[in-house]
Amino acid sequence: MKGYAGDPMKISARNHVPGTVKSIKKGPVNTEVILGLEGGAEIVSVITTYSAERLGLKEGAKVFAIMKASEVMIGVD
Amino acid sequence: MKGYAGDPMKISARNHVPGTVKSIKKGPVNTEVILGLEGGAEIVSVITTYSAERLGLKEGAKVFAIMKASEVMIGVD
Amino acid sequence: MKGYAGDPMKISARNHVPGTVKSIKKGPVNTEVILGLEGGAEIVSVITTYSAERLGLKEGAKVFAIMKASEVMIGVD
Amino acid sequence: MKGYAGDPMKISARNHVPGTVKSIKKGPVNTEVILGLEGGAEIVSVITTYSAERLGLKEGAKVFAIMKASEVMIGVD
Amino acid sequence: MKGYAGDPMKISARNHVPGTVKSIKKGPVNTEVILGLEGGAEIVSVITTYSAERLGLKEGAKVFAIMKASEVMIGVD
Amino acid sequence: MKGYAGDPMKISARNHVPGTVKSIKKGPVNTEVILGLEGGAEIVSVITTYSAERLGLKEGAKVFAIMKASEVMIGVD
Repeated sequence: MKGYAGDPMKISARNHVPGTVKSIKKGPVNTEVILGLEGGAEIVSVITTYSAERLGLKEGAKVFAIMKASEVMIGVD
Repeated sequence: MKGYAGDPMKISARNHVPGTVKSIKKGPVNTEVILGLEGGAEIVSVITTYSAERLGLKEGAKVFAIMKASEVMIGVD
Repeated sequence: MKGYAGDPMKISARNHVPGTVKSIKKGPVNTEVILGLEGGAEIVSVITTYSAERLGLKEGAKVFAIMKASEVMIGVD
Repeated sequence: MKGYAGDPMKISARNHVPGTVKSIKKGPVNTEVILGLEGGAEIVSVITTYSAERLGLKEGAKVFAIMKASEVMIGVD
Repeated sequence: MKGYAGDPMKISARNHVPGTVKSIKKGPVNTEVILGLEGGAEIVSVITTYSAERLGLKEGAKVFAIMKASEVMIGVD
Repeated sequence: MKGYAGDPMKISARNHVPGTVKSIKKGPVNTEVILGLEGGAEIVSVITTYSAERLGLKEGAKVFAIMKASEVMIGVD
């Protein structure tokens, strides 16, 4: 599609957390991707199936979890 | 900060709408950026002031409005 | 449902970008809608299938992409 | 701004919860609005100061809290 | 998964609106949950099917709708 | 406020990433919190100043970054 060349760019989202794709679960519209972080924690992402295919995501791939700072909440035990 | 090298990358966000920075209004934590689109419409973005400075945003710059598809609603007159 | 009369109202979301529905892809819970903007760019929205049906969305319809300013990121090539 | 006539429209956001404005706290970019619901609960919203002024929000006004279904989480005691 | 023990914690999200589960509709990736509030209004939430099962959501259960203040818009008739 | 007792609860948000508060920057409405993760990466959160004070956040505190899966994008180098 126009305006989605998938060309690399710098983005304003403050969070770029490096991780490895551990699993991918596809639905008709959305796909769930689980990343393993270096310290052992995990981050789960739900993106469109279109984008998952567009990025060619595969288990074992090195990727980043990207979140806008305003989407991140803080929890305290 | 670590994990925010600002290196260009491909991202899963479906929406990459090209525009030109028309105005920038900075607050202590957040900054408001208004983009003009080709057809004459505008898109307003609020990002952290840190990111606005990190990207070196200036009036007249060619940038993209990036939105996750799940954040976009539909309105009907 | 109560509180969802679908009555028109003014909303605080800063972004109301006019576009035309180019395609609709329905899943059991979510539906993907692609809008064509005047300048040729596209915006993709994922809304609930319930809302897509409630609004009576059809290809060719004139609608608006509505985004809260805090959901819009900025990307730079 | 263009594309923000503030004209009433129907929107896809599933949640339209009626409430009364109890307080408004303005910052340079963002404004916090607290709504009282009928059952006694409250909903807090942070919108741009521009939108708060554009809508003419005042204490005591009858308004709606509007949330996309995908933004609402569930908590269990 | 690691980091998702489901242990109770206090979170920064400003909105904790009490309600009762009225219906649950499961898709392969996402699940739609409708809550009835005390005053008669409803709130609809779309969460991952994993989380819906993890929390053991059932019709009639007393839960909370949790929203970050920055996700809540204001609408005016 | 009612409905914000700050009582601990289990929430549907899939992501609970443990980290340590490295810095806190307060504005009139919003506050920026930077967490250090175990592997060395960082996560930045913007929450309301009210919530930051309500949770009693301090540098060095052990907390969790909480994100809904639908808010997490994937980036590829």
